[in-house]
Amino acid sequence: MLALGIDPGTAICGYGFVELSGSRLKAVEYGAITTSPKARPQDRLLTIHTELTALIKKYQPDVMGVEQLFFNRNVTTAIPVGQARGIILLTAAQNNIELVERTPLQIKQSVVGYGKATKEQVIYMVTKLLHLPKPPHPDDVADALAAAICTTHCMNNIIWRNNH
Amino acid sequence: MLALGIDPGTAICGYGFVELSGSRLKAVEYGAITTSPKARPQDRLLTIHTELTALIKKYQPDVMGVEQLFFNRNVTTAIPVGQARGIILLTAAQNNIELVERTPLQIKQSVVGYGKATKEQVIYMVTKLLHLPKPPHPDDVADALAAAICTTHCMNNIIWRNNH
Repeated sequence: MLALGIDPGTAICGYGFVELSGSRLKAVEYGAITTSPKARPQDRLLTIHTELTALIKKYQPDVMGVEQLFFNRNVTTAIPVGQARGIILLTAAQNNIELVERTPLQIKQSVVGYGKATKEQVIYMVTKLLHLPKPPHPDDVADALAAAICTTHCMNNIIWRNNH
Repeated sequence: MLALGIDPGTAICGYGFVELSGSRLKAVEYGAITTSPKARPQDRLLTIHTELTALIKKYQPDVMGVEQLFFNRNVTTAIPVGQARGIILLTAAQNNIELVERTPLQIKQSVVGYGKATKEQVIYMVTKLLHLPKPPHPDDVADALAAAICTTHCMNNIIWRNNH
């Protein structure tokens, strides 16, 4: 099962494809879609939509995982983050990909085993669990990979429950 | 010149097409795209994208006007409003339509002549300026028409400046 984790943002949109076969996790591809602050907001969103659609067509993930945000800590970034998140959700629907939404707490719980883990702990565990040659950079990529790992766990639980 | 004004929202997304010929404003079409709270968030966004794209193909507006939001008064609705707004901006970019973003204050200033006008004053002036048979309902439609009226004014100013 191939999960695509996304950390939505207009300037940097992290993504990570994580494969789970048996109990083994493997990072298939990861990186960030970046857009220039000089570009118009609508063109930045179009870039995200175009590049994400191309990644989905190439890797064909079974499921997509995105952080669930009830509200943003930073009220001035809530609208731009929401806008980028809207594009992610739309792209999932357009490509008929199952969407898993989990809170930051649930994602940290799943990756670090502790819901209030620090950013550094998340990066450390993502690097370790996926046997990455070095810590993913920028942080948005680590967050996307964490969302993907959490999503593989969630899907495993759903499959397990359906079979028992 | 045909302007499309939008009031973004996931449950109700108001729209209004306003034509300006000479000094005369005319409402060509207006209404709301509505989505069910029972539907999944990504499917609601897909509905908005699909219906808005169909409206644009049908009426072929020259310009689109959307409220500029630096942050939402209601912090818990900022993310969903941002998500719907992202879809609106993406649709503008995909259809190569000029986008005009103005603050709520600028829109009220343009329609009522007073930036701190009440919702009732906006509805009253939209109804009057566009010679509507009755006040548009729900409020989201009036807000969309107000954004469209403001957009025609903005474009007129830009055209005037380019010619002088």
